[in-house]
Amino acid sequence: MGLQQCEDLETCLAVAVDVAKKAGQIIKDGFHIAKAVEHKGMVDLVTETDKACEDLIFTQLKTSFPSHELIGEEESSESGIPLLTDAPTWVVDPLDGTTNFVHKFPFVCVSIGLVINKVSVVGVVYNPLLEELFTAIQGQGAFLNGERIYASSQEHIGNGLLATEIGTKRDKHTVDRTTNLINDMLYKVRSLRLSGSCAMNLVGVACGRLDMFYELGFGGPWDVAAGTLILREAGGLVYDPSGGEFDMMSHLIAASNGHLKQSLVDCLVDYL
Amino acid sequence: MGLQQCEDLETCLAVAVDVAKKAGQIIKDGFHIAKAVEHKGMVDLVTETDKACEDLIFTQLKTSFPSHELIGEEESSESGIPLLTDAPTWVVDPLDGTTNFVHKFPFVCVSIGLVINKVSVVGVVYNPLLEELFTAIQGQGAFLNGERIYASSQEHIGNGLLATEIGTKRDKHTVDRTTNLINDMLYKVRSLRLSGSCAMNLVGVACGRLDMFYELGFGGPWDVAAGTLILREAGGLVYDPSGGEFDMMSHLIAASNGHLKQSLVDCLVDYL
Repeated sequence: MGLQQCEDLETCLAVAVDVAKKAGQIIKDGFHIAKAVEHKGMVDLVTETDKACEDLIFTQLKTSFPSHELIGEEESSESGIPLLTDAPTWVVDPLDGTTNFVHKFPFVCVSIGLVINKVSVVGVVYNPLLEELFTAIQGQGAFLNGERIYASSQEHIGNGLLATEIGTKRDKHTVDRTTNLINDMLYKVRSLRLSGSCAMNLVGVACGRLDMFYELGFGGPWDVAAGTLILREAGGLVYDPSGGEFDMMSHLIAASNGHLKQSLVDCLVDYL
Repeated sequence: MGLQQCEDLETCLAVAVDVAKKAGQIIKDGFHIAKAVEHKGMVDLVTETDKACEDLIFTQLKTSFPSHELIGEEESSESGIPLLTDAPTWVVDPLDGTTNFVHKFPFVCVSIGLVINKVSVVGVVYNPLLEELFTAIQGQGAFLNGERIYASSQEHIGNGLLATEIGTKRDKHTVDRTTNLINDMLYKVRSLRLSGSCAMNLVGVACGRLDMFYELGFGGPWDVAAGTLILREAGGLVYDPSGGEFDMMSHLIAASNGHLKQSLVDCLVDYL
């Protein structure tokens, strides 16, 4: 199913922004009150707010676009990740940064991407606490609160600010790889940030507050469907950590401004 | 010189809040425009904004409290850290999180502490981007935007969110210690955050968005003079990573809510 069979992308973006803001309000309301939480694996958490946001988003997207497919983090955590087809598919993380939310650490966001033929064409990332709304339509640039944004122009990795995440796995192989790679990286970059939201890291590179990001083992396509489009539309690059083409189903991602891809890949390649 | 010889602490707090907000406005104004930066060591940066904030803060504090001593990060970076005496001394970081500021990463703050007899008695930490004003007077509790705050009640380190920083040193001993300790920690805590501001980490523990924080090699007393008071007044604990008494001139700090001190010290003690 191609673009020409899809509703107007402007309409898709408008609906996605509307529903992201509504979900964002739920997140903001819940941020400062006590929350009942369940455990999702060892160190991951899922909250009532998470579920309420996904229900709200799915209901509105199904009403507006009844022919479209839906993939959401919450649903997938119960029934497994569905196959991504070529059909127009909304790929949704109702609350990226759930651990942050539970701890009231303000890097949380709603991430909503529309993917057609396995390519993101509309993306919205909304952080209701920082009041940052990142948006993009394929080919039309990336925006933060309506203002055009661009990835940084930094050409030297030594001046670059790098983001990564430690993920939720705690087996020795994963933990050793994580910290050995950080050890290597500390000699090469200016500094390192771990803030607990994959989508916020991607839009962080998109608006130039970060220069590079990688995560070996991110949660699923809902973490990246929107942010990767926003980053590319801001002039940034998204790729497999090996330097090859990015596959949103692979759980492996590297991203940077337009200049630092080779420098970052050179650092990562020994750890793949 | 004792408390009784000092101006009323309420007055001291009011002046500190006023000047922190003025400096915060300078930071906010500068945040989104291009900035001329100098290098301070390998990976640290100092900006024109940093200097403008310190000038503004020092001028107003000198006018309001002509008999008080002043210690500031910027001045100390030029002439060395002065001795901390028993006299009432304002210990000021005009812009904590300078690397964040340069990269437009929103964890930056003004930190202003009044120290008498080497004990913090008034503390203000203001993040103008998140619009978070943390305040405390010794014995009177800690506040965020006027509302009383408390450290978390988490008793299990495995459910705790930990913050640390990698600092600016890049010699092999320091880097290996940093990442070996992170490696150990990843098995013990829920997750890890690196956000680039020591003062924001301290007030983060104070308001419960973080449960623990350590930094082996923080910049100087300006990073901690205000945040440690705010954290203690919120029911948190501040201590030397060995578990002994905290010394703000030592460059070593560990902090937690009221329950996790021993668990954190047990983790840190092999790395001191």
